[in-house]
Amino acid sequence: MNETEPADPTAPAAKKRSGYRRLPVQQRREQLISVALALFASRPPEEVSLDDVAEASGASRPLVYRYFAGGKQQLYEAALRSAAEELTERFRLSVQGTPTEQLGAVLDGYFSFVAEHDAGYGALLRGGSVVETKRTTAIVDEVRRTALRRTLRYMGVREAGPRLTLLVRSWISVVEAAALSWLDEGRQIPPAELRDWLVDEFVAMTATAAGHDPQTAEVLAGLLALEGPGGRAALLLARLGALPADR
Amino acid sequence: MNETEPADPTAPAAKKRSGYRRLPVQQRREQLISVALALFASRPPEEVSLDDVAEASGASRPLVYRYFAGGKQQLYEAALRSAAEELTERFRLSVQGTPTEQLGAVLDGYFSFVAEHDAGYGALLRGGSVVETKRTTAIVDEVRRTALRRTLRYMGVREAGPRLTLLVRSWISVVEAAALSWLDEGRQIPPAELRDWLVDEFVAMTATAAGHDPQTAEVLAGLLALEGPGGRAALLLARLGALPADR
Repeated sequence: MNETEPADPTAPAAKKRSGYRRLPVQQRREQLISVALALFASRPPEEVSLDDVAEASGASRPLVYRYFAGGKQQLYEAALRSAAEELTERFRLSVQGTPTEQLGAVLDGYFSFVAEHDAGYGALLRGGSVVETKRTTAIVDEVRRTALRRTLRYMGVREAGPRLTLLVRSWISVVEAAALSWLDEGRQIPPAELRDWLVDEFVAMTATAAGHDPQTAEVLAGLLALEGPGGRAALLLARLGALPADR
Repeated sequence: MNETEPADPTAPAAKKRSGYRRLPVQQRREQLISVALALFASRPPEEVSLDDVAEASGASRPLVYRYFAGGKQQLYEAALRSAAEELTERFRLSVQGTPTEQLGAVLDGYFSFVAEHDAGYGALLRGGSVVETKRTTAIVDEVRRTALRRTLRYMGVREAGPRLTLLVRSWISVVEAAALSWLDEGRQIPPAELRDWLVDEFVAMTATAAGHDPQTAEVLAGLLALEGPGGRAALLLARLGALPADR
């Protein structure tokens, strides 16, 4: 990856004067992808052309076309892969804090990713984009699978039965729905509130599923032990229990 | 719609003998769509050709091509539209029973739809199919919007704020995730258990959201009043409240 790109014979002299620089291949590739990701944040992917990327990056068109000979589709897939890696990185849990604090920290990372990628995130999860293919769907599915694995590991589970898998997949879909809803409604709800809401929903959904599945009940008991009797999870469940009498 | 299709000049005599019949145009169209839907239930839509539909329906190929001059894509969209209408019909609530009983009845209708359409349902919600376009995504989104409207009406809500909208959209995504997970895991969980689980998750998620939003709190109070103190919702919440002390 230390290869440096060849001089661009087609780059106009003006471009050269205005700052066109030879970059190592990998660095140039990353630059073009990050420019593309920035463009996808404000426009649906099908409306971003290689020419737009060339213009926004200050690289010549032939250069951009050489890096992405497969056209827009190849650029989109490369950008998606890069975004998927970045998102997966943010799933890493901070080691400190109670389980609900750790989950909150992961969600903070997730929502900063959503805020940054905005339209690109929406287009991706909503599907039906002209640049969506089996390959792009596979990338998104891989992110979901990683989220599933990480969440199960966070819950201390080695081998999840169908009911626990269902619970975690369901909660992940709630996180996605919340992110889409948040973008659609013009970010009316502060991200910190959304994070707390999702942590609470995680606890409530797990507690509810515990009534249907012994494995989930065991996992819940472990989390409640880590949270402690005055922790967020215990307080939430106590509040839910008091609701019928409250009326 | 009383128009009868013209005699099919290309239909082989053998086919005619074996039961090829002239049908009114609308009836033939519906027959072909229902044959296509049955094929989509066991194979991804991109693997179903107009020839397959001709063979399975006993109609001649030219006849099928005349009905769907836009090819496979047109057939798929017509089938999707028909399935979407059928699903939307199943959202209609039975008038009797407590709110949780009514919700359970709607979910029964939903899962019978999922079971019937199987692979077709999965392909649709998972996206990335070669036959997926902006138009097909719009059809799916319309079903989701109808589900959102109906659920809000069921909750007695006229105008939902962003937090209540978020809650209902989230729960709908849980239903979808549950259906996909159910199909993926070879239908291990009995549909009646899945229905009860989803009803309980609805109650728990709403009760949790009530702590973050006055409108949701009001809706929950109304539902709990209809359920009564010994109803499913109240018993579930009491059980959740007892969990921290149970350990």
